[in-house]
Parts: sequence; structure tokens; C-alpha cells
Amino acid sequence: MTAEPFVVVGGDAAGLSAASKCKREAPDREVVVFEKGPWVSYAHCGTPYYVKGEVADLTDLLSLSPADAADRGIDLRREHEVTGIDTDERTVTVRGPDGDRHEQPYGDLLVATGAHALTAPIDGSDLSGAFSLHGMDDAAAIRAALEPAGEATVESLGGGEFLDPTVIEPYADWAPPETVAVVGGGYVGVEMAEAFTAHGLDVHVFQRGERLLGPFGEAVGERVGTELRDRGVELHLGETVERLVGDDRVERLECAGASALDVDLALVGVGIEPNVALLADTPVDLGDSGAVAVDDYGRTSVESVYAAGDCAEARHAVTGDFDWVPLGLTANRAGRAIGQTVAGDPKPTGDIAGTAVVKAFAQECGRAGIVDHERARAAGFDPVSETVTTASRSGYYPGAAETVVSLTADRETGRLLGGSIVGTDRAAVRIDTVATALEADMTVSDVENLDLAYAPPFSPVWDPVLTAAKVLNGSLEPSEG
Amino acid sequence: MTAEPFVVVGGDAAGLSAASKCKREAPDREVVVFEKGPWVSYAHCGTPYYVKGEVADLTDLLSLSPADAADRGIDLRREHEVTGIDTDERTVTVRGPDGDRHEQPYGDLLVATGAHALTAPIDGSDLSGAFSLHGMDDAAAIRAALEPAGEATVESLGGGEFLDPTVIEPYADWAPPETVAVVGGGYVGVEMAEAFTAHGLDVHVFQRGERLLGPFGEAVGERVGTELRDRGVELHLGETVERLVGDDRVERLECAGASALDVDLALVGVGIEPNVALLADTPVDLGDSGAVAVDDYGRTSVESVYAAGDCAEARHAVTGDFDWVPLGLTANRAGRAIGQTVAGDPKPTGDIAGTAVVKAFAQECGRAGIVDHERARAAGFDPVSETVTTASRSGYYPGAAETVVSLTADRETGRLLGGSIVGTDRAAVRIDTVATALEADMTVSDVENLDLAYAPPFSPVWDPVLTAAKVLNGSLEPSEG
Repeated sequence: MTAEPFVVVGGDAAGLSAASKCKREAPDREVVVFEKGPWVSYAHCGTPYYVKGEVADLTDLLSLSPADAADRGIDLRREHEVTGIDTDERTVTVRGPDGDRHEQPYGDLLVATGAHALTAPIDGSDLSGAFSLHGMDDAAAIRAALEPAGEATVESLGGGEFLDPTVIEPYADWAPPETVAVVGGGYVGVEMAEAFTAHGLDVHVFQRGERLLGPFGEAVGERVGTELRDRGVELHLGETVERLVGDDRVERLECAGASALDVDLALVGVGIEPNVALLADTPVDLGDSGAVAVDDYGRTSVESVYAAGDCAEARHAVTGDFDWVPLGLTANRAGRAIGQTVAGDPKPTGDIAGTAVVKAFAQECGRAGIVDHERARAAGFDPVSETVTTASRSGYYPGAAETVVSLTADRETGRLLGGSIVGTDRAAVRIDTVATALEADMTVSDVENLDLAYAPPFSPVWDPVLTAAKVLNGSLEPSEG
Repeated sequence: MTAEPFVVVGGDAAGLSAASKCKREAPDREVVVFEKGPWVSYAHCGTPYYVKGEVADLTDLLSLSPADAADRGIDLRREHEVTGIDTDERTVTVRGPDGDRHEQPYGDLLVATGAHALTAPIDGSDLSGAFSLHGMDDAAAIRAALEPAGEATVESLGGGEFLDPTVIEPYADWAPPETVAVVGGGYVGVEMAEAFTAHGLDVHVFQRGERLLGPFGEAVGERVGTELRDRGVELHLGETVERLVGDDRVERLECAGASALDVDLALVGVGIEPNVALLADTPVDLGDSGAVAVDDYGRTSVESVYAAGDCAEARHAVTGDFDWVPLGLTANRAGRAIGQTVAGDPKPTGDIAGTAVVKAFAQECGRAGIVDHERARAAGFDPVSETVTTASRSGYYPGAAETVVSLTADRETGRLLGGSIVGTDRAAVRIDTVATALEADMTVSDVENLDLAYAPPFSPVWDPVLTAAKVLNGSLEPSEG
């Protein structure tokens, strides 16, 4: 029997992980990947560091080249956009680089269409000089805008054979900007504040709420705010940006209320939305989050149609419900599992713990699980949190740095619900202890009794996570006795 | 009812943790701690860094002063040695600083007598200039021997009110040594090789086996060996040191076979033994390891007698059996739990995972669980291991460093049994992921699906531990299918 091909829509992390794994497990299966743009399999999370200049070439961010994909036996078609799906006929409609359309039959279909940056709430986001950062072209354009007039070329930007010169042309003759507004204080905002500061710009971050990095909780947000200010970034907290204005090019930012700022550049990082438009005319169900609903194997509501990556939901280890937390590992892991499933050896895509880490200058920030009390209550928990400030190493050992850990648990059961961490010395990776404990459904007592690493150069006797667990357990005890 | 006091033998981590917790939970309970020496509650693991000079004063290593203990209501009696225990009468015999003996009744008794350095296999370990490193006096003596003649004083060494001048007097007039032999390539040996190198000495490490850091497994041992050689340390592997010889002062080291080395100083770090002599005439049982046998609450075979810290066993999370793994966190945690239990609120001391980390110059090393195949087989497992070399960060991000992870699992069940890690970039604390997974009885599949932290500055998309789990899972699969 010759099965119809495994067709993948989207050639980034989830799509090419699935294609690669399927070809490895079932070499005879035909695997076709359609990618609408020129770029495939790139490190989205690395783009701020490319803009910053720590990563020299844009192509350094590629993890798999088209040639690599070909070597793996994947039929990868770039500049091919899937414009429709017929789940009855099991075909997709594809528009090629010359504009021609054709129908492609599939045996199994993976929707890995990713997400796109939200700009809608901000008027004027389409002005020249107003950027979002979602993808390689955005990264190249921003870096082009930062370079001295006339210096940015495809070659100087390390765009290789993939960067379309028209992406950077509008910025080639710009004088380097002096003042930049970063709209949104999430990961992208914080990382880009660091990147712009490295270029010597006056950086202003506008955040609607009173804290940066909302999903990381109060303690992290406060410390990161201090860090950014210490580095010369001007924070505008509690400010809602309404519009960017300018005569063709962005010149000014205006907030609700009176405040405004003259700017040369704006970076809008107010969130992303799953790319699900392609599914609008199909019976594939979306979840409450607006992303594609899937089961534990990445299967959608329609037979033989899978979804993975930034366009799809995944099961949350703490709530047991499906949720949309678009992150790189989740995409890679789900893609890989689906590739194996499609190859005939079903494999669950794995739970998510909502683990995320971000660097804010010298501060390393991490979070996992459910940190927000409102969210915890919505999931049926009675949340209790404690925050501790401890040392990253034995206090007498050089380099010991303040490390702040917050843990949240359910009062009745003592179950750990989530946690966050911030500090300058190996803080971020310590969140992995929390993530692992969450996936094991540990209680705070279990965490308190973990046998974690201790040696003076790396950790105090009681690791910061253990200290937080001890304190939180103390808060939980009265209601037990 | 007035209970007889809670009596603690030994004023270090386990003893004072127990005393402190008991006084906090039951302030009216009398708590008496006998410590035979002048030092209490010090950071044993910090002594190599004091010798190295990174920690200026010996007293910096104290975590609780006698005054702190008094503030907590603990009746702490230093220079009081417990010389006998009568478990029928529930008394201990105590010899005070003036040589007088008295009987002290107890309601509950904690034996927290610690361990001592083994020197027995090496003849001549009692020569002047032949040191072991087990405690504050050893650390002070070694540093005195390293200082220029006439410069070492209690004050210059930061000995405070606790350091007995007679400890350092023998070394006060020594010229600084030029060549040092470190006998034993375990933690102490590796840490002290770094410390002596910092003082400009020619450092020779003698190790009976073919690898350093045996309990960390082959991959770690190899890399640490390379690191030490790169730093100028001469390794003598597969050499059994038989004796230190000299005329009063150590002058020469002789191995089985012909090899020998002229030395000015020797550090013997070939292991430690639990201090259990005090229990010889009591009915308190020892375990197979030779340390005190306890249950999950730290209770010995005799009612109201507890044991904790380096003299006691603890339950191993992987085997479920009791084992002797004397480490700092275990001592603190067990002491604290016993303090709570004695105060009337029983609390288990917690499993151990055999988690250990050590710094070897720039290499950060970690291990947890069962790494050795022979040991795994003895515990009834069929061990399979894989070792991977990955990057510590996204490959394109500056500072990405090779990280080597080994994981071991049971073939039949897929259960994770242990792991080790080595690398220069945040490697050590990543072992906490393994330790947490071990305590949760995770399989390698569970580990492979953990939602661990990813951001280019801190970790590749697939964290090194995840990559190792993927590869090990691949090796396990054939026997499943």
C-alpha cells in the first residue's frame, strides 16, 4: 500500500521536526512541507540577540537548511503557501512562487502555521519605522534600520540566500535612530530593550500594566523593572499606547491621557495570535484560547489532521486542561511526536508546564506553572504564595547573588502550582526544578525534601527553591493541623 | 509534665539544625547540645575555598555562632565531649573542659557525631606536613603551612575566638611549600588541587583508580582529568600511595611499585568514616554501611535515640534501601526534621538521591542517583546508559559551552536510575532536574517530555538533560518493541 503523503503546512520548528522524525521512522513515506516564505527552521528566540549584534549573521539562526531537509528526504517547498484545506477530499490547495495553484492530496496533514505578532490595538503600526519582531525578516529590517545610512546590505546583515533585499531596502538610507519606543513589557519588549540599549539608543518601554513580564509574577517584574532602569531604560508603566503617528515614517507615540514621546523608531511587542485563518472554512475545531484544539497526540477534531507549534494548544501539567502557551520546545517536541505517530508508532506530545525563561540584561528570569492567583482560582485551586530572597551560593563564597523565588501552592492539598525566580547567578535554569516537580504533581512538602545540589560555588546548603518550599510549607501548615 | 531535655551530641549541621527547630516548635523544651571542640555549625564544604584564599577568614564559614545558639534558647556547651551513653538509664556521660565528668539525663537523644577523615591506609599520615581536610582546625593548619614563615597568626587566618593557637603553631615558621601531593582524587582531592594551584604550588594528584571523581562516572572523570592537566596539575592515575616518609616532617611519598615523589606537603583525602565509636557499648544498631541505622524519622533501634548527619544512614530514593551518603544538605534536613519530631510533630527526614556537585577549576560537575552499573545491578536493576555532548546554550549564542550528560536507566521498566553532568556553563545546577526526576520515580520517557527552560542565553531548545533522555530512550526502545 502506498499511503498518500504526510503533508506539513509550515516549515519551522514544529513542521520540520515532524517531517524529520517521520522520514527517520518511516523512510518510505513521502513527506511534503509547504512554507510560504523563504525561511525555514530558524531560531525565533534568537532574533533579539541578532538585533543586539551578539549574533553576527541572520543565517546563524538557522537550525536546518533546505539542503539539510533535502538530505533527510523531505520534499521541502519554500515560497509555497497553502491557501485552503479540503478535509473531505483530503487535499490542500497550494499557491506556488509563480502564483499558480495546485491541489496536493494528503494522507496525514500537520497544521504548523505558527503565530503572528499583534499590532491591532496600536494605530499607526503600519508606519515605516514601526516594527514588530516576529520572524527573520522583521529582525533583518530592524537591524538595517539601526545601521549607518547606506551600510545595511543583505551581505552585511548575514542574510545569505534567504533574505529578500526588498525587506531591508526601505531602511537602507536611514540615519540611525536615537530614540526608540518599545511598546509592551513582555519577553520581546524586555529583550529588545536590551538590544536597543546595546546600540546606544535612548530606550523607552511602555507597559499598560504596572509591571514588566506579567506572567512571571510580581517579584520578577519588580526586579526586572529596577534592572532596566539601572541600565538607563526609561519605563513608562501604567501607560496605554494608543497610536504611533508620523508622516509616512513614525515620529511620535501617543498614550491614552496626555503623555506622548517623540521617537525615531517603535517596536510593538504586545503579544501574538495563532495563525488559524487557514482553518476557517474547515471543520477543524479551535479551543477556547483561539488556537487549534488537539488531543494528547496532537490530533485535531478531524481525522488525520494534526496541529502543533504556536498555532496549537497543548495540555497543561497543572490544570490538566488544554491551554495555549506558544514556545519553542513545545513546538519541537510536539512536532517530533507527531512525526513518530504519523510514521505508525503513536507518541504523546507531552504536557506543558508553562516553563519560560528570559534574560533582562544581567537578570535571569524563570517561571513555570500557575503563578497568578486569579488564574489558579479559575482552575479550581485555593492559591497560597510565598516569596523568599536568598543567596545563589553560600554567603561566604565570592559571587553569591540575591536570588528571589516565589512558589505558589494549593492550600488544601499542598500541591505545587507554580513558581518563578529571578537573579543574576544561574537563576534561570533553577526553574527546571520547579518544572520537573510540577510535572510530577509534587506537593510543597515533596519539594522541600528534594535532595538538590549543594556546593559553595553553586548553591547554598538549602537551594533557593528549597528555601522557598520551606517557607511556603510553613504557611500551609496551620490549615493542616 | 516536664520532659527531660533533648540532648544533642555534636554541634554541627545536623545537631544545631535539630536543636534550633526543636526550640522553635517547642520553646519550653530544654535543649542541650554538647560539642567536643571549639567550633560549631560551620560550612565544612567551604574549607577548600578558605585554604584557596577565596574566603578570607575562617570565621566566615560559621553559619551559627554560639551567641546565636544562645539567642535561640539552646544550651550549647562547647569543649564538652560525650564519652558514653546509657540507653537504659537515659543518660550520657560528659567530660567538660576541665576534665570533670558528669551524667546528663535525656528525654530524647540525637547522635550527630559526624565523620572523620580516613588516613589509615597511608603510613606516615601522622607526620607533620601531612594533612587531611576534615574540619576547621585542619583548614587553619593547612593555610598556616602555606603562608610565609612567621606570618600565620590566629588573627591573620581569621580564626576569631575559636581557633586554638596550638593548632597552627607547628607551621608558623615553615617556609611555604613548593610541591604538594594530593592523595585521592575525590571531591576533596579535586577541590584541594585547585586550592593549592592558586597558591602557586606544583600539585600532584595520586589516584588509585584510573579516573578522578569515581562516583561521578566516566565522562565526568575524564573531563575533570583533562581540566586538571590543563591547569598544570600532574595526575598520577592508577598509583596506590603506600606511605609518606620523612624525618618528623613529610619529605617523600612512595607508591606501590617503584614510583615516588619528593614533596613538601601532603593532603590525604581518601575518604571518611562515620564517628560511631561512642555507640560501641550501646544497643544502637549500625547499618551495613557502618553508619548508624535509622528509620524514615531518623530513629535508631533504641527508643528515643535518633541519629543524623554524617554518622547516620538515610533512605535512598532510587533503591529504597538505606545507604550512607554523608553530605551537607542531608545533615541539615534530617536534623531539622528530627527537631520537629522531638518537639511533638513527627516529620520524615526525607529520601536522599545521592546528589552531589563539585567544582574543578572551571568545570562544574554534578551527579545524582545510581551511575555505576555494578551498583545498579546489585540493587536489582538492568542498567543502560547513554552519554551525550551538547551545548549549554543555543549554538549561535556567545558563551555556549560543551556540556556532557550521562543518564542511566533500568532496561525493563525504563525508570531513570541516575545521571551525571559536566561543563563550564551552568552545568552543575542542571543536575537538580535529574535529582527531582529521581525522587518522582520518573521513567526516561517522562524525563524526555519535561517542559524545561529554553532561551538562547541559558539553554538550547532541547536542554542537555532532555537530549540525553531522548538518546537513552532510543536505546531502550528496541527491547520494548
